[in-house]
Amino acid sequence: MDENSIPWTRVAAFVRQHTHDVRNDLNSLDLETELLRDLVTDLEATTSIQSMQKQLRSVAMQLRTLASLFHEVQPMMEPMDARSLLTLWREKHSAMQRAPEVKWIDELGEQEVNADASMFARVFLELLTNAAAFSPGAALTVSARVEGQDVIFELKEPKKSPVDPSTWGQPLHTSRHGSYGMGLFAAKRCMAANGAAFTQSYDESSGCLISRIVLGVI
Amino acid sequence: MDENSIPWTRVAAFVRQHTHDVRNDLNSLDLETELLRDLVTDLEATTSIQSMQKQLRSVAMQLRTLASLFHEVQPMMEPMDARSLLTLWREKHSAMQRAPEVKWIDELGEQEVNADASMFARVFLELLTNAAAFSPGAALTVSARVEGQDVIFELKEPKKSPVDPSTWGQPLHTSRHGSYGMGLFAAKRCMAANGAAFTQSYDESSGCLISRIVLGVI
Repeated sequence: MDENSIPWTRVAAFVRQHTHDVRNDLNSLDLETELLRDLVTDLEATTSIQSMQKQLRSVAMQLRTLASLFHEVQPMMEPMDARSLLTLWREKHSAMQRAPEVKWIDELGEQEVNADASMFARVFLELLTNAAAFSPGAALTVSARVEGQDVIFELKEPKKSPVDPSTWGQPLHTSRHGSYGMGLFAAKRCMAANGAAFTQSYDESSGCLISRIVLGVI
Repeated sequence: MDENSIPWTRVAAFVRQHTHDVRNDLNSLDLETELLRDLVTDLEATTSIQSMQKQLRSVAMQLRTLASLFHEVQPMMEPMDARSLLTLWREKHSAMQRAPEVKWIDELGEQEVNADASMFARVFLELLTNAAAFSPGAALTVSARVEGQDVIFELKEPKKSPVDPSTWGQPLHTSRHGSYGMGLFAAKRCMAANGAAFTQSYDESSGCLISRIVLGVI
């Protein structure tokens, strides 16, 4: 037994079970607040009960979201224009609050790819969110092009100093309040399940972090 | 990166942080119920609020207990009679509900050991609880003896068929409702922190599972 590491499958089963158990308890509390609402007429008390319900449901939703990161990734892939994925990326960017500045470069032709668009959308948003958080103010470049039988999506993110992404994307990378370092890991799993290669590297000549998704043309 | 396993330290940090976050939310809900109690006069509503508080505190306590399994083990060791540990084991047994039948064999002399008695108590209880759960009805034997410079505590548990304990005691071994397979792992960590060797083996000649704790005489 190597006491120093735990198989991903066991950690995932634990998180799914534990969040399920806590959500059961929250659900039972939610039912109790429903009961309570019928018993109470006082306005202030009613407001307080509503506030509790809102909190209970918010915690339950957070647990559900967390658990979803520990489920098997099951993409629903279908053929689509590679360009539609780039469009999706732009839409995700437009919908962001405090969206970073992005230069969009579309060098695609009419290539088609097999993909679960919703998973790509999540990954695109994760990459933009990380860029906004860790390179605030930097103007990003998102490009899409074709090389041989591959469609290549790239996010270029200027960095003030070199970074080493080699250890990024490990599950539970860092644990801070409400955030458990699962984002990049989930992104990698999503892309792998879609048959896409996801890599990150630091390019010394441009001083940029390059996040690259490579997907085969069908 | 080996995606298939996660360092224990990262999993532990995650569980501590996550249970802390959820407990924060539960605490805020608890405060809301306090507020609500002052606003409500109806008896049925008051009872309902009390029931919610009880549930909230019970979940918070479960989270605290779970988190404690993921903290560093810090024994408070002090010199004591080896026999006092055996006495502790008997006390833990007496306090059990549906305690299994145990034959006690004390072959100790006046040896002293360095130990955190509360940790040994927890481990003794864990072993008895497991024996009661997995070998119901079997009469157990607990013995304590000295060999050279070692004090040896042994629990013998007759098994209906051979068992292979070699993979037992891994963290998050199994996840069922409310139970996440941390018991034996925690026991092993406690014993290691006390400088004691904890092993389990199946003895073919007697058909018994033998759980053994070896502690140096001081």
